[in-house]
Amino acid sequence: MTFLKDPSVKYKKFPPINLPNRQWPAKTLDVAPRWLSTDLRDGNQSLPDPMSVEEKKEYFHKLVELGYKEIEVSFPSASQIDFDFTRYAVENAPDDVWIQVLTPCREELIRRTVESVRGAKKAIIHVYLASSPLFRDVIFGMTEQEAKALAVKSTKLVRELTKDDASTAGTEWAYEFSPETFSDTPLEYSVELCEAVKNAWQPSVEIPIIFNLPATVEMSTPNVYADQIEYFSTHISEREKVCISLHPHNDRGCAVAAAELGQMAGAQRVEGCLFGNGERTGNVDLVTLAMNLYTQGVTPNIDFSDITSVVDVVERCNKIPVHARAPYGGSLVVCAFSGSHQDAIKKGFARNDELKKKTEGQHSCWQIPYLPLDPQDVGRTYEAVIRVNSQSGKGGAAWIILRNLELDLPRGLQVAFSKIVQTEAEFKGRELKGDELVNLFEKEYFLEESSANYDYNLVDFNIVSGKEFKDQRLLDGTVNYKGKEHKIAGKGNGPISSFLDAIKSTFDIGLEVQSYSEHSIGKGSATKAATYIELSCELPGQPNKFIEWGVGINEDVSQASILAILSALNRISQRV
Amino acid sequence: MTFLKDPSVKYKKFPPINLPNRQWPAKTLDVAPRWLSTDLRDGNQSLPDPMSVEEKKEYFHKLVELGYKEIEVSFPSASQIDFDFTRYAVENAPDDVWIQVLTPCREELIRRTVESVRGAKKAIIHVYLASSPLFRDVIFGMTEQEAKALAVKSTKLVRELTKDDASTAGTEWAYEFSPETFSDTPLEYSVELCEAVKNAWQPSVEIPIIFNLPATVEMSTPNVYADQIEYFSTHISEREKVCISLHPHNDRGCAVAAAELGQMAGAQRVEGCLFGNGERTGNVDLVTLAMNLYTQGVTPNIDFSDITSVVDVVERCNKIPVHARAPYGGSLVVCAFSGSHQDAIKKGFARNDELKKKTEGQHSCWQIPYLPLDPQDVGRTYEAVIRVNSQSGKGGAAWIILRNLELDLPRGLQVAFSKIVQTEAEFKGRELKGDELVNLFEKEYFLEESSANYDYNLVDFNIVSGKEFKDQRLLDGTVNYKGKEHKIAGKGNGPISSFLDAIKSTFDIGLEVQSYSEHSIGKGSATKAATYIELSCELPGQPNKFIEWGVGINEDVSQASILAILSALNRISQRV
Repeated sequence: MTFLKDPSVKYKKFPPINLPNRQWPAKTLDVAPRWLSTDLRDGNQSLPDPMSVEEKKEYFHKLVELGYKEIEVSFPSASQIDFDFTRYAVENAPDDVWIQVLTPCREELIRRTVESVRGAKKAIIHVYLASSPLFRDVIFGMTEQEAKALAVKSTKLVRELTKDDASTAGTEWAYEFSPETFSDTPLEYSVELCEAVKNAWQPSVEIPIIFNLPATVEMSTPNVYADQIEYFSTHISEREKVCISLHPHNDRGCAVAAAELGQMAGAQRVEGCLFGNGERTGNVDLVTLAMNLYTQGVTPNIDFSDITSVVDVVERCNKIPVHARAPYGGSLVVCAFSGSHQDAIKKGFARNDELKKKTEGQHSCWQIPYLPLDPQDVGRTYEAVIRVNSQSGKGGAAWIILRNLELDLPRGLQVAFSKIVQTEAEFKGRELKGDELVNLFEKEYFLEESSANYDYNLVDFNIVSGKEFKDQRLLDGTVNYKGKEHKIAGKGNGPISSFLDAIKSTFDIGLEVQSYSEHSIGKGSATKAATYIELSCELPGQPNKFIEWGVGINEDVSQASILAILSALNRISQRV
Repeated sequence: MTFLKDPSVKYKKFPPINLPNRQWPAKTLDVAPRWLSTDLRDGNQSLPDPMSVEEKKEYFHKLVELGYKEIEVSFPSASQIDFDFTRYAVENAPDDVWIQVLTPCREELIRRTVESVRGAKKAIIHVYLASSPLFRDVIFGMTEQEAKALAVKSTKLVRELTKDDASTAGTEWAYEFSPETFSDTPLEYSVELCEAVKNAWQPSVEIPIIFNLPATVEMSTPNVYADQIEYFSTHISEREKVCISLHPHNDRGCAVAAAELGQMAGAQRVEGCLFGNGERTGNVDLVTLAMNLYTQGVTPNIDFSDITSVVDVVERCNKIPVHARAPYGGSLVVCAFSGSHQDAIKKGFARNDELKKKTEGQHSCWQIPYLPLDPQDVGRTYEAVIRVNSQSGKGGAAWIILRNLELDLPRGLQVAFSKIVQTEAEFKGRELKGDELVNLFEKEYFLEESSANYDYNLVDFNIVSGKEFKDQRLLDGTVNYKGKEHKIAGKGNGPISSFLDAIKSTFDIGLEVQSYSEHSIGKGSATKAATYIELSCELPGQPNKFIEWGVGINEDVSQASILAILSALNRISQRV
């Protein structure tokens, strides 16, 4: 344990960039960048258990399906497996997809790398070289000028083997150069090095040279990276023949910000991985970047409408789970547990529906508290949104019941049921899942299919009305109480009052309606009535009144009411 | 699936802030902010399975131990459990720790909240109110002026119940107000609202009022949040009596950046959770923020020197794992699998050792490629750094062998062993753990304790030298070959050549040394010699020569060499 009271003896502050007339902080992101997925290269090399060839193939096809047009598939000179997979990618890529391959500045490895993409429709040869003092000194022992000479020599070799070789004319060639690590290289030298490389390659406006400026290790706040990019972007010559590419890592947790500010600073391309896989803390997360554009109204050109299938492929191939709180893709990111959040979300949906009605469907703007994205846009249902535990208020459970059973519980019943839910959640010490809540509700309010164990069960009933009884209804029927059938009869001005009367005269139980509401469920001939009744109850020999809610559902409104009364009565009967 | 080709019909771009003379992009982070952990409140309320009371207690004490001086413990008016836990925190907090509690603007809830911290040494009453148009309209249906009036009324009530109530004089009271969601509230109104609240509270320079400016939902690039903070910081009056606090959420994956740029823009305090727990994508990660300061040489005032124990408590209490790639705390973030990374790291360590020697230990600056942090500073060993799979080069496995067996393999042996490792890793289709590599090395080079199954085993030997033999050595001894003992004898100018001679005459095997090296292991009387020998071998009846490495370890240098020869011979014997 060597946590330093004064860490400045060991760690130096990253020096700020002197950038007079800085422009990027006032810019906005208005178009999607060119994306490069390096999942199969930078991502794969960082996995404890790298992908099998079959997994690489599956991942490659998923990337193509999602819409990626530039895919770095391998380090083909490193192993036969990487070389062979490159061949597979070359032979199976759609015509508009660039296959990118990485190579160090070594002649035999460059030759092998170019060989690996022979016959591709579009290929990017990606060459990297140590440019930062630390990397040059420690790894290669090279001076700045030696490194520059090597970069130029390597670039010329690639050129000779690719666009200058008429026999490869069937391939559209692009060239990418990465000074490693750009973020730790003096800016003047980065520009000098890249100028030399550009001169050696001779790019065109149509196929600009890609200067990929990696934050191989994230070393500063993301505004510093943006400063570096803006410096580079405003100092490199023939800017129109240059595509500035970002390759941020996430050591300080700011890779997404670095990529966004870097684009504001002039970059046109981003390299990263799905859900931020990659060395150490990972490469920048391409899902978050794309969806951040989407939720600002900018099309990302990548289709995440079925994000669950993306999570599935990524988790299976990488063998590293996507975190529950990963933006957009995590299992918990469209969920609300807190009562106040759930309440606000419910109100937001209700307001949305109103606005849609008012504008005859023209209102399409997404504005729901606590939900920056419509879950349906990434293929998730609203059911996933609201989840219930002991921290949730009445709204959450009511929402689940509404979405699953189409029962729009009155406020009083919401409160009553939420107490039951809280007790259950505390007892279990965990979240209650949707089906658990549904089962709990059906059990508590006697709505289960099998009613064999209920104290009171309706067997049959008949209501007679007619002029001869004035406004009265006569009800007779049969109620099974604890296994024994009782004939009942009562009268009142409707089915409820006559049933209450019948209960009073048969069982000597005094029931009084405290509140009542009802709505329909479904449409057409399948329509049912849902009835909610709050009853106060006087039992013989019991000094206190009981108050309970009951719920009844039936095609027949009268029967729904009677079932609701029995539901409340069963609750009371269990309490006594 | 409703992924829109043109998402602008549904999602509006967040408008940029007009901030002439913007200052923050040229600022740096030079001191730690005040930290507020809301793990027990905002964090806990977002958990599928909230903490038990025991877990909350454990978590609370861990926060205190780490050095947090402001801890939001609960929403005490929400439940008896939260109220009771607040009492526990009040009664168990060290004198210098502020207990913070959250309440909405409702009189009975405010009263209950103040009640919950009665008797605390230091307490912060944290009041929140909807200020953004969406939140005001949808949730409360309040105008700006109504909201302001309610905020003022609530603030006055808190004041009356706390610092104006002489009976609570034993408590140092602070007040925090959060306009929800600040990031979506017109800036002019945020300032107007907070001016009114400030006026109602009447803060002092000694205990400034805390204006917590939440990005309850992250809605823009982090520079926009910084702009908002700078606007607020430069427009609120009596700035010296105001502490600006940040509360960023991570919906766009930029919470850390928002907190850092927000501090550059003038904020003095940050609210967040360990490892970024919290609603949806989480609150900002306090671990990353603190360690980002540390690795820039700024003391964070929080001690993460035993980060494994922090991960342990967080995972156990939250029941959500810390991701393998979470900055600083994730299991993979100090690991390197790729051969080139491993090589660079090894070279970096070697250079460090050299610099330390040269400067007689004065050199303390941390500069290792690909490793932004010394793993030991967070209580991790170097053993965790380099891990080996089929993507790793020779350096990785060699590093593991060096760290575990103290064997500094010569380059040729590294290459030979790495081929064995690659085959094994590909065969297993996964990473090889350190002990697996050690076992593999010991098995392949016949270094196991039990040598019963080896073809060749040394039983004993004796070397005689003396004037009478000139410079010659005479060796005799016993070698067990496949269970049968053979007396051997040979001569040469040293133990190696005489042993090779003996092998030739006994078994008719022609061995020739291709390369040889040796180093000591350990110190003092426990010192051993490790010998590496590369042999070429001609076997009777075999047209081709074999080349193999052998390794021998023994207190006696001569015996180490002989064992190394037998190690190579055993490898050859297995191949035939």
